[in-house]
Amino acid sequence: MPISLSVEEFARRRRFVEQALVHREWDALCLFSPTQVFYLTGFAFIATERPIGAIFVPGKDDVTLFVPELEREHAERAQVQQIRTYVEYPDAVHPMKVFADLLKELGVAGGRLAVDADGYGGGYGYVGPKLSECVAGEVVSSKDLIEHAMWVKSEEEIELIRESCRWGDLAHRYLQEFSVEGANETDVSVRASHRASMEMVTALGPGFRAMRYGTFPAHAGFRGQIGADSALPHAMTSNAVLRTGDVLVTGAASEVGGYLSELERTMILGPPNDEQRRYFEEMILLQDAAFDAIRPGSTCADVDRAVRAVYAERGIEETWRHHTGHAIGYGMHEAPFFDIGDETVIEPGMVFTVEPGIYVPGFGGFRHSDTVLVTESACELMTDYPRDLESLTLPV
Amino acid sequence: MPISLSVEEFARRRRFVEQALVHREWDALCLFSPTQVFYLTGFAFIATERPIGAIFVPGKDDVTLFVPELEREHAERAQVQQIRTYVEYPDAVHPMKVFADLLKELGVAGGRLAVDADGYGGGYGYVGPKLSECVAGEVVSSKDLIEHAMWVKSEEEIELIRESCRWGDLAHRYLQEFSVEGANETDVSVRASHRASMEMVTALGPGFRAMRYGTFPAHAGFRGQIGADSALPHAMTSNAVLRTGDVLVTGAASEVGGYLSELERTMILGPPNDEQRRYFEEMILLQDAAFDAIRPGSTCADVDRAVRAVYAERGIEETWRHHTGHAIGYGMHEAPFFDIGDETVIEPGMVFTVEPGIYVPGFGGFRHSDTVLVTESACELMTDYPRDLESLTLPV
Repeated sequence: MPISLSVEEFARRRRFVEQALVHREWDALCLFSPTQVFYLTGFAFIATERPIGAIFVPGKDDVTLFVPELEREHAERAQVQQIRTYVEYPDAVHPMKVFADLLKELGVAGGRLAVDADGYGGGYGYVGPKLSECVAGEVVSSKDLIEHAMWVKSEEEIELIRESCRWGDLAHRYLQEFSVEGANETDVSVRASHRASMEMVTALGPGFRAMRYGTFPAHAGFRGQIGADSALPHAMTSNAVLRTGDVLVTGAASEVGGYLSELERTMILGPPNDEQRRYFEEMILLQDAAFDAIRPGSTCADVDRAVRAVYAERGIEETWRHHTGHAIGYGMHEAPFFDIGDETVIEPGMVFTVEPGIYVPGFGGFRHSDTVLVTESACELMTDYPRDLESLTLPV
Repeated sequence: MPISLSVEEFARRRRFVEQALVHREWDALCLFSPTQVFYLTGFAFIATERPIGAIFVPGKDDVTLFVPELEREHAERAQVQQIRTYVEYPDAVHPMKVFADLLKELGVAGGRLAVDADGYGGGYGYVGPKLSECVAGEVVSSKDLIEHAMWVKSEEEIELIRESCRWGDLAHRYLQEFSVEGANETDVSVRASHRASMEMVTALGPGFRAMRYGTFPAHAGFRGQIGADSALPHAMTSNAVLRTGDVLVTGAASEVGGYLSELERTMILGPPNDEQRRYFEEMILLQDAAFDAIRPGSTCADVDRAVRAVYAERGIEETWRHHTGHAIGYGMHEAPFFDIGDETVIEPGMVFTVEPGIYVPGFGGFRHSDTVLVTESACELMTDYPRDLESLTLPV
């Protein structure tokens, strides 16, 4: 079972970046976003007020990782050739100044510098100058270079996402089993996530290491979408108790080697009433329409248009709240989107969530989400969990 | 027990913003960062590719919250007077264009617009124009306005942080109890967090609602700092098994009404050896020096300098990896920082973590973190957990 990307995968990524830099006549690539730094270096870290950056200079197959002293030893686990540290943020000398000095030392501070962002994006109280204010050279945005490279997943990435799906599915099975009348949502979520996580870490063995800061390698829960609150697509976790008649909208995921998947299901606690049954079946029609529309050569907008046509045909436009889905991989949400405004052409190897939803304020929400892989001719479900109402009706 | 900010607190915040805008002659304030949006509106949300913004126009005591359709009903729970929705991201009309149209409608698109960021910061695949590219008016950065207002906590904020400390302390007590030879770190963390969380949600009652997306209202764990890996201050959660002789560096927290606290402890599994004992005691000296140095009128840099002087006196400079601490509140890390580069003057009502650490690669790490409140004359510990080696030596 693959549990992380190989050394060769990172070598391939460096070759891709090398070619792009030479082709576009850039002298160096500087990355600051945690996602893009991971892409190039395999370094997963807790982002704080302390900037972290990666520098690639063509011609040397060489990545320099720029980290605070705090991360010195941790950075040695990354797929990089050089590690350079600065003292601290803000310190007597601002880290962005140290970064600019490093670019000078690498001989590229006066050149054409491609960046994913003009300096560290921050948050966590960080304040600092733009990179373009610290160097003489020209700073050019290349945010799309790696973002677009992430659209089509490699074989290794696909295997990690498959593995992620397996453990998300398992966590969801326990969630379904533990969802009984009178249970507290936090209790159910934690027990399901706990059991699945322990089985996951036992199966994957001592080499398994989570890449994100969180407690559960595999997780399933409700995020507050219980009963009437299930009509809030992004409600926050609350303190609800499950009651007979409730619609429950779930979410399950796991992370393997940094890669994610998404499984969401609509469950009914006790026999569904007619209205619940009707909306559930409409939601299945919407999701089926999406699956049918996903094929290489179509656009992401085509898929969303096909789904919106079903809302219109069925006369349920007022229940629409969001687009059909998003790409997923190292990021929980990635571009492109199944959205009428996204004309990106679908290609084999892309991985998406498919999750059109129906939301009826005061009554309930209905949404499944599956993770799919675009194949040569269609799409393939990577999540493997029953979708039908009978399987998702919980005994009371 | 307070579990969320009052309606009056948000009215006070609007008055503060009103006065600042009038004083600085700004025509409107536009906020895009989740933290600043929460400050003004109490709206806590899951940030995705979909921009969310808040607009305040002086003279009306009126906040407009700008959200995607997805968040329409959820937004009604916020402390705002107007909710305006856009369809979706990216959609046929880009949300930032809709936002600019809304500013026009409010009569301020041609005026002086104060912003926390020039458009939505994004991530999650978001791409969009700057706000300044969509409006005729002048766009002025005012990131510091609310950031600085967050430095000194209100009485309500302090009460929420106190409440957060109580539950973080409880989670840590269970973590300590469950940390036994042979236990898997994930198992110990989950069991402790689970028990403390259930006791917390039971005690706080049905009105309690988490403001962040995560499973545990109260949490304690290791984040991978176990045995030799405890020398990595920001290691990620791994799959380690606790062994006699291990140094364990922990972390505990809870969230109440959006507010956080931080408790970290160094524990030893079994009787400490001489070297462990020595580093532990040095770490206590460092933290004591910090506590002694924190007083109104001193600067944040003064505190870090006092601590660094102890590293030098004790001849342990090579074990230094990071500054003494950071502010904490709604953000996990906030400015200002106990760092030699931060000359911010300390004021009563500020809340900080105090967490100087000692890191010996290949051997172990030693760090306590406590949350403290700056009082009129000194500082007061808000976390309430034993700090001494005897109390933190675990039986084997």
